[in-house]
Amino acid sequence: MEKNIHDILNQVLRKVVPTREERERTGRLCNKILESFDKVTKGKFLIKPMFCGSIAKDTWLAGNKDIDLFLLFRPNVSRENLTKYGLLIGRDIIKKLFGEVEVAYAEHPYVRGFVANHRVEIVPAYNIKDSSKIKSAVDRTPYHVRYVNEKLNRNLTNEVRLLKRFCKGIGVYGSDLKTEGFSGYLCELLIIEYGTFENLLRNVPGWHPGMVIDIENHYKNKSQAKRKFKNNPLIVVDPVDKNRNVASVLSAENFFLFIKKSREFLEKPDMSFFFSSQIETEPEEIKKHMEERGTKFIFIKFRAPTTHQDILWPQLRKLRKRLTDVLEDSDFKIVRSDVWSDGVRCVIVLELLVDKLPKIQKRIGPSIFDIEGSSGFLSRYENYKILIEDSQWVVEYPRRYKEAVELLKDFLGEDFKSLKERGVPKNLAEEIHEDVEIFSDEHASRLIRRYEDFRIFLKKYFEKDLV
Amino acid sequence: MEKNIHDILNQVLRKVVPTREERERTGRLCNKILESFDKVTKGKFLIKPMFCGSIAKDTWLAGNKDIDLFLLFRPNVSRENLTKYGLLIGRDIIKKLFGEVEVAYAEHPYVRGFVANHRVEIVPAYNIKDSSKIKSAVDRTPYHVRYVNEKLNRNLTNEVRLLKRFCKGIGVYGSDLKTEGFSGYLCELLIIEYGTFENLLRNVPGWHPGMVIDIENHYKNKSQAKRKFKNNPLIVVDPVDKNRNVASVLSAENFFLFIKKSREFLEKPDMSFFFSSQIETEPEEIKKHMEERGTKFIFIKFRAPTTHQDILWPQLRKLRKRLTDVLEDSDFKIVRSDVWSDGVRCVIVLELLVDKLPKIQKRIGPSIFDIEGSSGFLSRYENYKILIEDSQWVVEYPRRYKEAVELLKDFLGEDFKSLKERGVPKNLAEEIHEDVEIFSDEHASRLIRRYEDFRIFLKKYFEKDLV
Repeated sequence: MEKNIHDILNQVLRKVVPTREERERTGRLCNKILESFDKVTKGKFLIKPMFCGSIAKDTWLAGNKDIDLFLLFRPNVSRENLTKYGLLIGRDIIKKLFGEVEVAYAEHPYVRGFVANHRVEIVPAYNIKDSSKIKSAVDRTPYHVRYVNEKLNRNLTNEVRLLKRFCKGIGVYGSDLKTEGFSGYLCELLIIEYGTFENLLRNVPGWHPGMVIDIENHYKNKSQAKRKFKNNPLIVVDPVDKNRNVASVLSAENFFLFIKKSREFLEKPDMSFFFSSQIETEPEEIKKHMEERGTKFIFIKFRAPTTHQDILWPQLRKLRKRLTDVLEDSDFKIVRSDVWSDGVRCVIVLELLVDKLPKIQKRIGPSIFDIEGSSGFLSRYENYKILIEDSQWVVEYPRRYKEAVELLKDFLGEDFKSLKERGVPKNLAEEIHEDVEIFSDEHASRLIRRYEDFRIFLKKYFEKDLV
Repeated sequence: MEKNIHDILNQVLRKVVPTREERERTGRLCNKILESFDKVTKGKFLIKPMFCGSIAKDTWLAGNKDIDLFLLFRPNVSRENLTKYGLLIGRDIIKKLFGEVEVAYAEHPYVRGFVANHRVEIVPAYNIKDSSKIKSAVDRTPYHVRYVNEKLNRNLTNEVRLLKRFCKGIGVYGSDLKTEGFSGYLCELLIIEYGTFENLLRNVPGWHPGMVIDIENHYKNKSQAKRKFKNNPLIVVDPVDKNRNVASVLSAENFFLFIKKSREFLEKPDMSFFFSSQIETEPEEIKKHMEERGTKFIFIKFRAPTTHQDILWPQLRKLRKRLTDVLEDSDFKIVRSDVWSDGVRCVIVLELLVDKLPKIQKRIGPSIFDIEGSSGFLSRYENYKILIEDSQWVVEYPRRYKEAVELLKDFLGEDFKSLKERGVPKNLAEEIHEDVEIFSDEHASRLIRRYEDFRIFLKKYFEKDLV
């Protein structure tokens, strides 16, 4: 068994550790970028260039094409000038290397260039001596790089590579709000804490929600950190900023998926944990799953807005929650719900226990002994049958929507303003107002036939099991 | 309007105030009973005879055939002798009057005889000087009689008669556990408090649950009494026993029905409030109601056990609650439920939103942050799909019963012991084990066609509206 794990890990390493050629190529490109920086600035600006990201920490996965150059300005430079000169200098660096340039946005605008098949991001930031006085997230990045380079034992960088690849393989790599998974920095800190990938995996099955890793002992004890970051399944206190949980974006679902996959890998080591094979799914397979469950599926499809993924995904989840609340409020009980997008279109998946209900709707009101609450309830429903059940008011009134689809059509068929008032996030409200399609019953299969990515998503949906 | 009320009340009085002949007849019968008592006891026993009940308080409704004679023993007589001599003397009194005799049971056994078309109950009790030292409920009765005779103004006895008749007319007269309504003593106290029937009715619409009437000011204030008798919609402190709420049996439903009917009578006075006309209902009418509601009805029928009504009805309600809990637990949402019995057979009425569900059942578990609860939940459902929804565990497992009727058949088809273990009250478990029939869908109409009383009950069920 032990041997088997090491065989597998060695096999993975052969794929993820950059070759000498790749290292040299990347080194040459970095040097060219620095030369270009020198030419552009000609020593006129008091700006320090610094490579960040996985390249700077020697933790990148073979084939990685991302290079991050930070331009560190002195703190007395105004935000306006930092942005202005950051963009100008960034643009000129790329141009001198004959690359293509575009402006991207994180917390602040920065330059993204495409040079020699690499994506080079040039990010202006403040060079702040005291990490507690950091002004924005990008100013923190150089600290992370310095910390990792100081603490991560040189021969452990490959352990980080194993962990990153494992996270990619099981689908939890990335701290973007679509993935809600593990960032590169988080992977590095986990290896700093646990030493090796294998040792980490042996410890993970003992993790429980509220797990605290506080490498620099910023907190007196775990409970203190737990209170500070409550409702976070994993708490990894940022060594350079005690008020930040590096794993704050990690969802509970991915937390448990990581535990489950760690356990499974130790039990039965296999390359597939690191490199998942392409899933193929026929529409018939998906339809079989749906029939087996016997539930009612409703798919709500609309065009994806052109917003950043980190804005789109929380909005999709918010809309999902809003719709399930509205349905449950009318007794359409939800079995499960989820969201999907391929960047072009979005689908909210609603799986219902039943989608048709009788005319009568029952609502349970306050206790009859709650005089004030009773008075409000009784006057609101004065035209309907009022009864008492276990000392609580009950009203029976005609159900407005006997079919879930009718309810959704009316809810989503409103004008833009009403949609927003009903809690539909702005960017989605625009798209929904323009074109929304509701697929249910036989129509649902049309959508399944149309998009393979959606089928792959549904296959995972049906197989999902977190423990 | 005012005149109209008085016209109606006068019309009612003509029907409920006993005629001179009836009074004389009753008086003669009471004298005969006393003579018979004297002959039987021949002054040998230190027992005081005392008429109780509405006859003794001059509050009986014309045509009343109940006469209560209490045999008051001295407190030093043993319970055994009280029972023994109570029964012997009671029996002999009736026999001397050539009546039929039977032994009945309240808290203790007593004699019931049928003499000259009247039901004469002869109840042994202790003659206790200090009402706070009362040993059982029957010992309290003489105190009630003395209290009412002292406080109820002679010309107000007819007001009590109006109130009793009103309660009968709207179906809330009687403190038995089938009716859960107003006792005669409660009616008398309400007139003592409010003076007249009309004045009572004018005050009733201002009642709220937790209404306190404390004629003798046993409590410092209303809140104190409210705390003592919490969860009682109406609190009428017994003038002779501060620890007793005379209205303790009154259900919330009847409390609100009384308020509603009082308001309606004042708005539109009519004889029908006192003498409800016979309702006739065709099976077609009931079926139309059912179809309009669009819900699913399930009737569970079994033979009525030969227990006292005061035992039967709470058991029927307990079984109703048990069955609705079991159904709701499996996602079969109940719209309404009720119980019916004509003394020969019982029916539990279950009205469901849906009676068929898909294969998948979802159960929401504890928070993922509740480590102990999670561990129990996860080990219980380890063979099923485990997911997370809003930081709570969710399990999806195959539903055991896709049809409500199947669930009920299995639940009620157990042997006697298992039925009891599942919370089916003993007396009902026996009958259910012997013969239970479950009617649903088309079969339901068979039951509706068969029993007119059941139809009348269902008609009221459909029309029920408490406010």
